Amino acid sequence: MPSPETLVALPGRSERAGSAKTSPVRDLLALTERPEVISFAGGLPAPELFDLDGIRASFDEALGAPAVLQYSTSEGNPALREIVAGQYTANGLPTDAGDLIITTGSQQGLGLLSTALLDPGDVILVEEPCYLAALQTFALAGARVVGVPYLGDELDLDALDALASAHAPKFFYTVPTFQNPTGRTHGLAARQRIADAAIRHGFRIIEDEPYRQLRYSGDPLPSLATFAPDHVLSLGSFSKVIAPGLRIGWVRTTADIRPTVTIAKQAADLHTSTIDQAAAAHYLASGRSDAALAQIRAAYADRRDAMVDALATALPAGSSWNSPDGGMFVWARLPEGMDATAALPHVLRHDVAFVPGAPFYAGPADARAMRLSFTTYAPDRIREGIARLGMGLAGVA
Amino acid sequence: MPSPETLVALPGRSERAGSAKTSPVRDLLALTERPEVISFAGGLPAPELFDLDGIRASFDEALGAPAVLQYSTSEGNPALREIVAGQYTANGLPTDAGDLIITTGSQQGLGLLSTALLDPGDVILVEEPCYLAALQTFALAGARVVGVPYLGDELDLDALDALASAHAPKFFYTVPTFQNPTGRTHGLAARQRIADAAIRHGFRIIEDEPYRQLRYSGDPLPSLATFAPDHVLSLGSFSKVIAPGLRIGWVRTTADIRPTVTIAKQAADLHTSTIDQAAAAHYLASGRSDAALAQIRAAYADRRDAMVDALATALPAGSSWNSPDGGMFVWARLPEGMDATAALPHVLRHDVAFVPGAPFYAGPADARAMRLSFTTYAPDRIREGIARLGMGLAGVA
Repeated sequence: MPSPETLVALPGRSERAGSAKTSPVRDLLALTERPEVISFAGGLPAPELFDLDGIRASFDEALGAPAVLQYSTSEGNPALREIVAGQYTANGLPTDAGDLIITTGSQQGLGLLSTALLDPGDVILVEEPCYLAALQTFALAGARVVGVPYLGDELDLDALDALASAHAPKFFYTVPTFQNPTGRTHGLAARQRIADAAIRHGFRIIEDEPYRQLRYSGDPLPSLATFAPDHVLSLGSFSKVIAPGLRIGWVRTTADIRPTVTIAKQAADLHTSTIDQAAAAHYLASGRSDAALAQIRAAYADRRDAMVDALATALPAGSSWNSPDGGMFVWARLPEGMDATAALPHVLRHDVAFVPGAPFYAGPADARAMRLSFTTYAPDRIREGIARLGMGLAGVA
Repeated sequence: MPSPETLVALPGRSERAGSAKTSPVRDLLALTERPEVISFAGGLPAPELFDLDGIRASFDEALGAPAVLQYSTSEGNPALREIVAGQYTANGLPTDAGDLIITTGSQQGLGLLSTALLDPGDVILVEEPCYLAALQTFALAGARVVGVPYLGDELDLDALDALASAHAPKFFYTVPTFQNPTGRTHGLAARQRIADAAIRHGFRIIEDEPYRQLRYSGDPLPSLATFAPDHVLSLGSFSKVIAPGLRIGWVRTTADIRPTVTIAKQAADLHTSTIDQAAAAHYLASGRSDAALAQIRAAYADRRDAMVDALATALPAGSSWNSPDGGMFVWARLPEGMDATAALPHVLRHDVAFVPGAPFYAGPADARAMRLSFTTYAPDRIREGIARLGMGLAGVA
């Protein structure tokens, strides 16, 4: 006999939720948790480089008075916003604290801007390949996602123009500096042309900059917002420069949609942890963060070099890979005829892991591509891992 | 000459964002920030009752190892989920840690469930009046919100039945215990009937329980989930029992939509602050939270009594008000012919504030109603504030 509970079927999940998939990277990471696996699959900062003592002291300072335990404003901690605004201004993009809304990680910023700007069925443009969790957020908003392809290592700017004409997108989402997954950076001329296209076609740009401060070589490039201040919304984060466990990011909004983004933030979680925000403000004001960031940069530069050097001897003939000026990822391509997803089980048998490039594409994927994170291990361990990768790939043929 | 920036108009905010308003309570609070104002308008816990030392020690303990600075799982801290599951089980609702997803405040839980369950145009039912920030979240999801009226102090259960038949809602949202704004609680028989209606009509129930542990009189009542375990999703929060600055809540999900809620959480902010979650787990495990909660309950009970007693002499003849068994709010009604919104400016001149009931209604409002929060001040200050309120209201006629 059926229980009364089963007599009337419950409504299922929403259609928009049905269109979002659990992250394949996340599922893969579960397979790589064996301690003997050297995993280049994650995108994790190196925990031994976190300034635990400085952060701990900053929390203790923040927790000196009960106000930090109370509800606070949706826009965020004023001192923290002043510090972030000062960093933008120092980098050539004049910014007021009032332009900024603190978010629970920059991932939340993607959701707030989707809520503020997108209705179901709206078209947006993304780079192809694209940051996965952004694709997930846009799917949950019911957006139609159209990918802008690369020509080699450069975004196809003519395609951007043609797709903007064809689709009248609400925005173009880009990680312009040391992109996840490719490590690629849009150069000065490309930035100018992307901004011009936004102005000409009347679309917004969401510029996601979690890696901006992780530069190891080359000169800093201006924010897209310097070329089109009314069109560009910028996302930033302390996840890579203080620690991701804090979950603190921000949106630098244009004036026209600031009230809407504020309402979206209020509805999302009222505000970001008062305690974490106050601790971050204390930590940044202490000056310890500059020293910690310098140390992180130096260590990651060594790790990038170790990986890029090791790839030259480990990958099969006909492979290619880049050497990014910063960030966390190298993008490699296996030779013609090889498939990175098919190769992964062979490689895992040698206790090493990477992420195939395929899941990062909204449309047809480059089956030969793979993403390798170089930040998690010291150089020796990276060399060992890449050697194992070479052995694993040699066994595929 | 127009700048090139102005040649092509930018797309505006989304339609769904246009349907959400900034909280009138929030706007009002800005007016009450003068220190001489006694404000019963907010819904703020009393900061002097927070266990600052205990919480500070728990953060210090949590920050003893760098793992707490790293990314963590979307579902949340395992130890914290075990503690919350244990509390449910002890209260008669068997719960596994795996049933729980930690959220950035219970406000985020509302958003995650909206993402998981609602497509634009879907109908949901709410209590009328209803918690404001929930209405905002449902508006951003594009939901059509239908209010279920009260008959006096009891929900109109026949109306719930009829509206469920007419609209086939996706869910009914309720704050069953010490509701915001009314302080009302659904009794045992009403809970059984609400659950039966959900089973019979095939809608879900979202049971929002931020105040459950703030009981000062009367006996605890079972969760709606005990009557319809497959139909009820429960939200909880530490904002009222530890501190709101932490931003930690949870969703107790049914198995059928747990993967979908997890994806929504991942897309929302990857996960809640690793540090705050670990600190909360340490704090709850320390046993200090029980003593702190007992002290909070005792203080709030005195404050409720002070307010309820003072209202008897201060409100105009023909007014009515309730005396809730817990929570933070008294719901009062001015005499026939008086309008609480119109009275507010008169009252503010006497340096006291409340929130009119009108904004809490999805449909036609009770213009005579007002919400009074009793948690923020000590009894003497409450008596002083209510006396001022009486003077202000006396000047309206």
